[in-house]
Amino acid sequence: MTKKHNIILQPSGSRGQAEEGQSIRSAAHDLGVEIESICAENATCGKCMVVIEEGRFEKYNMDSKRENVSPVTNQEVAYFARRPRLLKDKGWEVGQVRLSCQCKIQGDVLINVPEESRGNKQIVRKSATQREIEIKPSVRKYLVTMTPPNLERPIADWERLAKGLETSIGLVRRGEENLPHWSDFTVDYTCLRTMSSTLREAKWNVTVSVWQDKEVVQVQAGYHEDSYGAAVDIGSTTVALYLCNLRTGEILAAESEMNPQIVYGEDVMSRIQYTIEHKDGLEKLHKAIIATLNKLLTLAVKTANMSLRARSPKQSPDEEVEIASGESAPRTSSPQGNDIRTEDILEMVLVGNSTMHHLLLNLPPKDLGLAPFVPAIHKSVDVKARELGLQINSAGNIHVLPTIASFVGADTSAMLLAEEPHMQDENWLLIDVGTNAELVLGNRKRLVCTSTPTGPALEGAHVEYGMRAAPGAMERISIDETTLEPKYKVIGMDGWNTDHAEFKGQVKGICGSAIIDGVAELFRTGIVDSRGRFKTGLESTSSPKGKRIRQGESGWEYVIAWAEETSIGRDIPMTQQDVRQIQLAKAALFTAARTLLKRSGLESPDKIILAGGFGSFIDKEKAMLIGLIPDCVLDNVYAIGNAAGDGARIALLNVEKRREIEPVTRKVERFELPTDPEFQNQFMLATSFPHMSEPFPHIAHLIPNRAADPMAKNFMK
Amino acid sequence: MTKKHNIILQPSGSRGQAEEGQSIRSAAHDLGVEIESICAENATCGKCMVVIEEGRFEKYNMDSKRENVSPVTNQEVAYFARRPRLLKDKGWEVGQVRLSCQCKIQGDVLINVPEESRGNKQIVRKSATQREIEIKPSVRKYLVTMTPPNLERPIADWERLAKGLETSIGLVRRGEENLPHWSDFTVDYTCLRTMSSTLREAKWNVTVSVWQDKEVVQVQAGYHEDSYGAAVDIGSTTVALYLCNLRTGEILAAESEMNPQIVYGEDVMSRIQYTIEHKDGLEKLHKAIIATLNKLLTLAVKTANMSLRARSPKQSPDEEVEIASGESAPRTSSPQGNDIRTEDILEMVLVGNSTMHHLLLNLPPKDLGLAPFVPAIHKSVDVKARELGLQINSAGNIHVLPTIASFVGADTSAMLLAEEPHMQDENWLLIDVGTNAELVLGNRKRLVCTSTPTGPALEGAHVEYGMRAAPGAMERISIDETTLEPKYKVIGMDGWNTDHAEFKGQVKGICGSAIIDGVAELFRTGIVDSRGRFKTGLESTSSPKGKRIRQGESGWEYVIAWAEETSIGRDIPMTQQDVRQIQLAKAALFTAARTLLKRSGLESPDKIILAGGFGSFIDKEKAMLIGLIPDCVLDNVYAIGNAAGDGARIALLNVEKRREIEPVTRKVERFELPTDPEFQNQFMLATSFPHMSEPFPHIAHLIPNRAADPMAKNFMK
Repeated sequence: MTKKHNIILQPSGSRGQAEEGQSIRSAAHDLGVEIESICAENATCGKCMVVIEEGRFEKYNMDSKRENVSPVTNQEVAYFARRPRLLKDKGWEVGQVRLSCQCKIQGDVLINVPEESRGNKQIVRKSATQREIEIKPSVRKYLVTMTPPNLERPIADWERLAKGLETSIGLVRRGEENLPHWSDFTVDYTCLRTMSSTLREAKWNVTVSVWQDKEVVQVQAGYHEDSYGAAVDIGSTTVALYLCNLRTGEILAAESEMNPQIVYGEDVMSRIQYTIEHKDGLEKLHKAIIATLNKLLTLAVKTANMSLRARSPKQSPDEEVEIASGESAPRTSSPQGNDIRTEDILEMVLVGNSTMHHLLLNLPPKDLGLAPFVPAIHKSVDVKARELGLQINSAGNIHVLPTIASFVGADTSAMLLAEEPHMQDENWLLIDVGTNAELVLGNRKRLVCTSTPTGPALEGAHVEYGMRAAPGAMERISIDETTLEPKYKVIGMDGWNTDHAEFKGQVKGICGSAIIDGVAELFRTGIVDSRGRFKTGLESTSSPKGKRIRQGESGWEYVIAWAEETSIGRDIPMTQQDVRQIQLAKAALFTAARTLLKRSGLESPDKIILAGGFGSFIDKEKAMLIGLIPDCVLDNVYAIGNAAGDGARIALLNVEKRREIEPVTRKVERFELPTDPEFQNQFMLATSFPHMSEPFPHIAHLIPNRAADPMAKNFMK
Repeated sequence: MTKKHNIILQPSGSRGQAEEGQSIRSAAHDLGVEIESICAENATCGKCMVVIEEGRFEKYNMDSKRENVSPVTNQEVAYFARRPRLLKDKGWEVGQVRLSCQCKIQGDVLINVPEESRGNKQIVRKSATQREIEIKPSVRKYLVTMTPPNLERPIADWERLAKGLETSIGLVRRGEENLPHWSDFTVDYTCLRTMSSTLREAKWNVTVSVWQDKEVVQVQAGYHEDSYGAAVDIGSTTVALYLCNLRTGEILAAESEMNPQIVYGEDVMSRIQYTIEHKDGLEKLHKAIIATLNKLLTLAVKTANMSLRARSPKQSPDEEVEIASGESAPRTSSPQGNDIRTEDILEMVLVGNSTMHHLLLNLPPKDLGLAPFVPAIHKSVDVKARELGLQINSAGNIHVLPTIASFVGADTSAMLLAEEPHMQDENWLLIDVGTNAELVLGNRKRLVCTSTPTGPALEGAHVEYGMRAAPGAMERISIDETTLEPKYKVIGMDGWNTDHAEFKGQVKGICGSAIIDGVAELFRTGIVDSRGRFKTGLESTSSPKGKRIRQGESGWEYVIAWAEETSIGRDIPMTQQDVRQIQLAKAALFTAARTLLKRSGLESPDKIILAGGFGSFIDKEKAMLIGLIPDCVLDNVYAIGNAAGDGARIALLNVEKRREIEPVTRKVERFELPTDPEFQNQFMLATSFPHMSEPFPHIAHLIPNRAADPMAKNFMK
């Protein structure tokens, strides 16, 4: 029987026995500690470095005198000789630091696995819950050293590559089950076309990128460690792209552009209409988004290269990597080496609402807009980049997340993936607010969803002085309960307008979050009643109050900024019409939420999660005060920003999450609001502040003139 | 327990028990008798018709009086009412003939399953052995009746289609194991793009074509029963395409064209050279073959439609098919209906030598021509038609058979598939003769292969008056042993020239088969000796003999046709140079065969199979006499024509054969002749007639002047 030795691995503290002569990397694997390796244990990538804490003599020596680990090999000497800076920075000496694929166990040892050598690196994401995402990309790279062909065994290039790949995967992922056999591999057709010449240029030492452990999608000469991918959220208004390193999870660039389809229609319905009315409509909308995505890819690659170059101003000679044959090849396409090219991007994950999904995939969106409102496909779509004309590697895969319903799209699937309500015991209400709002409610047992058009008011459109969140837009409004005098904050300026003289002449309009604030404050201060009507009588009180509340061109209004404070030279009021717009929007949202709660037999959700840019800027207390969202403990209301983008990124970095979310999206129950008989009734009641038939204990203290306002009686329940 | 009844099925004679109420089709399946069905047992396709021989009353009646089978259903009445001609032709009446998916067993019955209703139809192929090929195409069609979407269950189009398809497959292939689950299906991207509109046009009744039981590649409105495919043999000189019905196996059209690459080089080496010397060389050669294939596809579809129209001059009203919803849809794309379109072709199988394989797939062929002579890939390639620009259905699959070596290509794989030496106990020698000859020898235990350039002489080139097999070419030559006077046959004319006066002025040259004849006859009659030299002395014998054997411009020659017999106004001789050309070609072929025999430890093969057009026309006795092929019982030498084309067609019609041949091609051992040390020696010996060191007992009686010719001593061994 083979001799056994004791082995302890730090910092995990894992301990156990290893066989005489077993490599440290292999022994660590047996104890559940994964150590990185990319070079198929060829002592060339250096990813598997470990520090021998105990079990060796103080000084490295080549004597036959026995240590508890095998002597340093010539390859290790060569590897570390090229990295003096690394040794100096870390204060290591050769012999203390070893390549764990080469270093064999000959006695008891205590080993430290430094952070950078640990397998399954994780990224931390902050959200409603804080979670770690394991990096398990669909594309992995392997260094393959092939047997050159000869007259005795003239085996074809592909078969030799596949056999080399099998060996390499076996070494890198030692001990894993169900590793692929060489005859299981397939090769992308466009990759096959250039394969043979690359193999010869590279003298049979290549880095092979494998998709889903199955399909070879890229063959590169020499050694490369990094793969790249892009995650994209296609919004009706904005398209956001994140370029990521698939090995580390790092975001290398984030770029966004307006959705160019906006010229064909502002909202999804008008774009659907455009494809119905114009023979080439679908083609135009499809080509427009593809062109923008290609532009974003180019921009992101440029940004990433600039920042990578800034990080390592010049290529240092000690970064050269020895490839297995003993020949030296320059390290390319890595942060320290040459630039990233778009063809180094090997996968793209995209999300968007169902209409964006159809237009991206060139599928006619007609039936998304017609009863009974069905998408062409629910399940996720995998399609080659070249089929869509997306300019990443032509063999690269495009993964589009599943759709849930006609108006609950792949963006909602991404939100579920990011927030994971299906993993919770609590009931969470997720709301993605936009021109159209998607809502999902539930927990691990059951999820229900719906969607509702909220109109553009919440984004500042259809409001008299509404504007998008941009410099010059009011973002906060507060009204003094006693004087009824307002103050406001403006994007691009610090503090309140009342604190600074330089606010004069800066303000241009009101953005979404300030509109919510404004309406909430008009209600809180009693200027409008719980039905949203300007109260008569207040305008006649003494100046300066009297001037703020006045009859405007289209009815009552409240002036927030006088003409001289603006850059447009006109008074900026909030009007009765503006209040009505918000009432309609919030009634739609609230009714949708209420319907889901009722269908789930719940009074209120345990948590409310607001996704989307809008949710990040609104004052959650004010939102609850006007009844935009149901009553809930304020601390349990979270704004999480672009959850769809986060979900796309998670799907890009972890292929298992993609597989997990597919059945979840198929299980979500959908309710189409118009089919609910109570909808119209509920909707009318919901137009009041906060809601005519609902108790709102968590913001009750803010509700004004409770006794005087008969409609407000329920607020005290 | 359910009641059981006895059931007998004719003509197979299968008998057993069936359950009360079980359909005849289902009961037959349980007894191992497959009955066709395409409509998912909807009583609409009529493929499952059976005749109830015993077990029913003489006259069909609707009384409740019990028969041994269930009463005729309304659907059956409707189905047969539309087919009065069928009933008349067959002499059947309704009630006697039944749809076996509808007719239930209620007592003992004797049933006749007519030929056209039997599943797994077979085609018969004649060859070295006579075999039946089961039709198991990779693409199968299913009629799917979908649930329309509604507001309560707004499921996406694809998911409803997939579920309908699962149901349909389950019914059509009742009882088979491992039938796919709906969530296993995938859909081709281009098929997905048009799917939704087709489903709505078709009012949710569609025919779905599924590739490999997995991928949906076509969705057609209404009911369609036939799928089409093309099998192609790409020769260096000629490209031959067969358009087939994938359901019946019938060849609907066979078209051929010159390989357009010939303008870039006559043989494979010069085409490889062209791609090396010209930057756009590969692209040009690739595009040329694709254009020719597209032309052949168009031609074949035109030919097929013309012959289908001729068969059924007008669409008869009784061919209308009722689809499951009860609505009537015209039967399209079927022999009786509208024309076949190129997009109805759903798969293409191609074969060719390794260079043709690479040029078809746009793979650089450089390394096929350079030592160590390796292809880019051995295993078969599946790629979408649109990737190659082949104008069949864009979702259609292109299957290219595996390559075996650099000079033993997919055409040899196809020959193996057609002849199946790997299924034999006998040792077969397969020779595909062309400018390059490929040889495979062996049986189920071991197969060895090699290839050898034979030069163009065997095809009539590099022979002074050589020409391709075309009208005006001599195809047979015979020389009288006593008078040394020749006679010949000419393509396009009946009988020998000596029998008819009208032969005068017709002959233009000598094609491959006549060249073999001529050389063999020159040897047999003693005009040339066993080393191929014209014998001196013969020319001085008395006229007319003396005139035929003469000193020509480039040495000795034998005049076969005088100037007045030809259309070119010159004597047509066979020259010493011509004999030398044939000697070189036959020596190469013979040495290759001999090497394989020696490596396999065999004296001679049990059978010799000559593939290719050339093999079909040569006189096998003469071929053996000059030593072109090894000695063998003459009756065991077969010419099988285009075995590569046959193999392509078998692979097209039977997907299992494709899978079977893959490991066979990987097991074939390859010998490169130049690596054999004995090669040069063997080659020199093999230039003599028939072979200097070999016994040829089977043609020994034909060998002339044996005592007089010292080199011929071995022939008597």
